[in-house]
Amino acid sequence: MRMRSGHFVMADEGWPGCAKSLKGVILDMCGVLYDSGEGDGVAIPGSIEAVRRLKESDLQLRFCTNETQATREKFVAKLQRLGFDISASEVFPPAPAAIAVLKDRSLRPHLLVHDGLLPEFDGVDKTNPNCVIIGDAAEYFSYQNLNEAFRVLIGLEKPVLFSLGQGKYYKETDGLKLDVGVYMKALEYACDLKAEVIGKPSPTFFQSVLNDMGLQSHEALMIGDDLLNDVGGAQHCGMKGVQVRTGKYRPSDERHPTVMADGTVDNLAQAVELILNQRRR
Amino acid sequence: MRMRSGHFVMADEGWPGCAKSLKGVILDMCGVLYDSGEGDGVAIPGSIEAVRRLKESDLQLRFCTNETQATREKFVAKLQRLGFDISASEVFPPAPAAIAVLKDRSLRPHLLVHDGLLPEFDGVDKTNPNCVIIGDAAEYFSYQNLNEAFRVLIGLEKPVLFSLGQGKYYKETDGLKLDVGVYMKALEYACDLKAEVIGKPSPTFFQSVLNDMGLQSHEALMIGDDLLNDVGGAQHCGMKGVQVRTGKYRPSDERHPTVMADGTVDNLAQAVELILNQRRR
Repeated sequence: MRMRSGHFVMADEGWPGCAKSLKGVILDMCGVLYDSGEGDGVAIPGSIEAVRRLKESDLQLRFCTNETQATREKFVAKLQRLGFDISASEVFPPAPAAIAVLKDRSLRPHLLVHDGLLPEFDGVDKTNPNCVIIGDAAEYFSYQNLNEAFRVLIGLEKPVLFSLGQGKYYKETDGLKLDVGVYMKALEYACDLKAEVIGKPSPTFFQSVLNDMGLQSHEALMIGDDLLNDVGGAQHCGMKGVQVRTGKYRPSDERHPTVMADGTVDNLAQAVELILNQRRR
Repeated sequence: MRMRSGHFVMADEGWPGCAKSLKGVILDMCGVLYDSGEGDGVAIPGSIEAVRRLKESDLQLRFCTNETQATREKFVAKLQRLGFDISASEVFPPAPAAIAVLKDRSLRPHLLVHDGLLPEFDGVDKTNPNCVIIGDAAEYFSYQNLNEAFRVLIGLEKPVLFSLGQGKYYKETDGLKLDVGVYMKALEYACDLKAEVIGKPSPTFFQSVLNDMGLQSHEALMIGDDLLNDVGGAQHCGMKGVQVRTGKYRPSDERHPTVMADGTVDNLAQAVELILNQRRR
């Protein structure tokens, strides 16, 4: 910021300078830690070590994901098999948040989600549904299944649609795949409604992670591969947001008309190296 | 319209008074003539006779449909089997219009359409596609097929998406079914683009039907079951638009916030009765 006196000062430390005053880091998972695909997918080079280094530092660390193809337990077990030192209590996915909302508002869902996520909803009353929840159902997004969800919604006097994220697409080892947000828009248009997003970039969702760390938003940094949902969502809550050039990153992200990352790095390993270097000074 | 002198005059005849000065009628097909479903579907009571009466009148008659599950020939043959006196040259569906646009702009499509429509595109170069066309693919709207269309679009420097209609849903004999517009919105969101609609309610499409009749828009009336695409689309072009209470009609259409039909009738038979009565006076 240029002061009137003509002196230059750093009014608000940018990236990576801001790392000095950080108290916590939140990491996106798919596209930052690993690329999904056949079997467990593959770890992104340097990410296993980067997570280990963050854990050894004085920073708090949480994982915030829109992953909805498996229960939290199975998802974390996969990450552990890939070599990551991560426990379930550190991971925040949308499904548990959705279940809390259902309970709070006495709603019974019709589920259009991946088969792998169904056990998460075992204890939830799904009879005579009065809302619809969609997740990243992938191949379960058949015409028949989408039509079924549509008919539930159009038959309700006050249709309520929850979307576990609003991502457009993600990268698997064999290419880009359409994400839940695309089907959310489809149902929004079909039923003339606006979905409630549970997961990133919902401020409520980010806030629940900050609450768990006991931090203010300006004390935390989000690192993700999704410019809108990770970086933009975190910035909207007052956090810093850094994008990695892995996962679904595309060069055009760096000239996006409305969202500008605080920093862009080649990968998580580089981000962690820069953060820890700043804090050593 | 109230004149300054205090006298009342009919400046612009409403429905059904406008029928006196009409020169042509355009009919939507599915939901007006018949309900689709198992096999050929079923004719809506009174519609076969209503079409016959219009043909015997001095009014010109055309059929304007967003039907894209079959070639025009097969589609018309189905209507004939149901008992309608209709020939292919009177029927305007989106696919032939789309093929004209492809030729005009030297585009090679990737097709996400119903198998039954594919023969319509037999003579079209589909190698190395530089645009995507989606129609009402119904059960062919699998996750895999939508993902494939997405990958073609996202791989193009200037992605072009044509949608054969933008309907939200239609009624088959066993219930409501999602229509192409829902998947158009999905791909628009995924690829950050705006589709070009070929078919109703595109003004170009309505105009081609008017041109074929050699009529001005104020000389023609559109009758359909879709408030937005039939009635609203026709009104946007300067035609009158009447909605039937058959097909996808829902009572809430009669209190729609932005589109108000010039008239609402129980079915096509009633509309034709009112039109011909007016013209006899």
